[in-house]
Amino acid sequence: MTTPARRVGIDVGGTKCLALCLDDDLQVVGEARRPTPKGPDAIIDTLVGLAEELAPFDTIGVGVPGLVTMDGTLRAAPNLVDIRDFHVGRLLADRLGTDVHVDNDATCAAVAEWKRGVARGSDDFVMVTLGTGIGGGVVAGGRLVRGANGFTGEIGHMVVDPTGPPCPCGRRGCWERYASGSGLGRLARDAAAAHRLTRVVEIAGSVDDVRGEQLAVAAREGDLEALEVFDEFGRWVALGLANLTNLLDPGLLVLGGGLAASKDLSSGPIRRWFAELLYAPELRPHPRLEFAEMGERAGAIGAALLPVVHAL
Amino acid sequence: MTTPARRVGIDVGGTKCLALCLDDDLQVVGEARRPTPKGPDAIIDTLVGLAEELAPFDTIGVGVPGLVTMDGTLRAAPNLVDIRDFHVGRLLADRLGTDVHVDNDATCAAVAEWKRGVARGSDDFVMVTLGTGIGGGVVAGGRLVRGANGFTGEIGHMVVDPTGPPCPCGRRGCWERYASGSGLGRLARDAAAAHRLTRVVEIAGSVDDVRGEQLAVAAREGDLEALEVFDEFGRWVALGLANLTNLLDPGLLVLGGGLAASKDLSSGPIRRWFAELLYAPELRPHPRLEFAEMGERAGAIGAALLPVVHAL
Repeated sequence: MTTPARRVGIDVGGTKCLALCLDDDLQVVGEARRPTPKGPDAIIDTLVGLAEELAPFDTIGVGVPGLVTMDGTLRAAPNLVDIRDFHVGRLLADRLGTDVHVDNDATCAAVAEWKRGVARGSDDFVMVTLGTGIGGGVVAGGRLVRGANGFTGEIGHMVVDPTGPPCPCGRRGCWERYASGSGLGRLARDAAAAHRLTRVVEIAGSVDDVRGEQLAVAAREGDLEALEVFDEFGRWVALGLANLTNLLDPGLLVLGGGLAASKDLSSGPIRRWFAELLYAPELRPHPRLEFAEMGERAGAIGAALLPVVHAL
Repeated sequence: MTTPARRVGIDVGGTKCLALCLDDDLQVVGEARRPTPKGPDAIIDTLVGLAEELAPFDTIGVGVPGLVTMDGTLRAAPNLVDIRDFHVGRLLADRLGTDVHVDNDATCAAVAEWKRGVARGSDDFVMVTLGTGIGGGVVAGGRLVRGANGFTGEIGHMVVDPTGPPCPCGRRGCWERYASGSGLGRLARDAAAAHRLTRVVEIAGSVDDVRGEQLAVAAREGDLEALEVFDEFGRWVALGLANLTNLLDPGLLVLGGGLAASKDLSSGPIRRWFAELLYAPELRPHPRLEFAEMGERAGAIGAALLPVVHAL
């Protein structure tokens, strides 16, 4: 590239849309945000407004939560109101008069870590976002893996126990029933119901009110029962990471999402269990396990870089 | 390429080594086979002998069973005697005076289907070999996925039930405990021990002698109890295939290995359960599910094509 580029990226979240403009050095040179409105028309208006705030720009990318096709259609999005077969890429391109690249928000987070964060220089890595659910992005052989339809990375619904608890998706024992933020809360409430979390229940007020946050408070006080639940949680996280490693042999695993906030508690158990659950651990280099660096701007930064990585 | 090439591929199996020579049209123009001897030195002698039988040739590739590094070292191979850190690529290159490409046998099978078989023209597919164990190969975005170390595709050890039966690998509930040839035998013996397989036990002589073969005989007679076990087997195969699809979104899944012999019995259950176990099945095109075409020559054909696909 010979002329400096201004790349806009917009992350469409459940409550707000964050737009950033990056320069050629991938530094943030513009920022705007608006609440996420309800319905496809209002979302397009919001995205156009954000893009105009950051104009002029050379390329634009959008990250959205859910299944995104290769041509930029959001098939469904559990956290957005009235969204089904939302042709966000085409509609926004028509309004702006320029190409628009669209991808899943976890994929955008992976791109951000790859180009600006902890995965810089890595040709083979998997990003796992541990939030309310689990999302993912895959880079293999120096290229973003998109799949036949653009849906690569729906790793939260990897079934890890077919007789496990029901998942809203209709199956049982999906990985995100255990290894996400809601999974941690469920593991904690199960332990509390079995009278294994005295201190946590004291903090929460009742078994039903137990959440990951109170578990973390008790664990940081040194409460052994709370630390045991983090160990169990770490085992479930590690189980999925080992499965991913057996399949894809990444050199690096990046953990992002809200759960990164309790990495002081989960990192040790995840690492220990990972070494036990990986196939043939004595015969292979283990992937590095790192926490994401990009924070809450990851989605918008990755969205801005979609036109670059989609072209690789 | 402007001059016609002769490409040799050798598949090193547990009992025999099969060597083929392919021409530019990927037709087999030479073939040789020898028993697989014991120990690294004898194997190298055998491979040199096979290569010389098919000389002259332009490129050579070797498929071996086990974990193969990017530089052609076989770290370990459960089915070969006295093999550990076997530098097959380097040793053979020294003897032949030419580059040697080495990869895992399931990866070779994937390459054969990709370039000459049922996956021709596919840019995103996963090959799954259901034999004694389960192996795999992954093509994404039109390129073979190798991973950071060359170990991509160890999908048999994806844990699908952490409290499941022990696996020789040291973990529990690995996919190949259910969805391989030995998994089918185990499911059948469990059913027989629970008095659910009268006809199969009659054929086998005793519960302990029940294998997949007798199960298939009874199922083809229309025995409902035997068909039920094939349904259970199909569910486990489908569970792993759905997990792979959620992660990688292939346009095609290719099933190979010895289990393809009972595809008349397993294909229906696998397809039915796959549609139930896939995430968001109503929102996406499902990958095509096909059985491998290349048969027992797949490994050698794919090995011959390693120099081509490793360069992509």
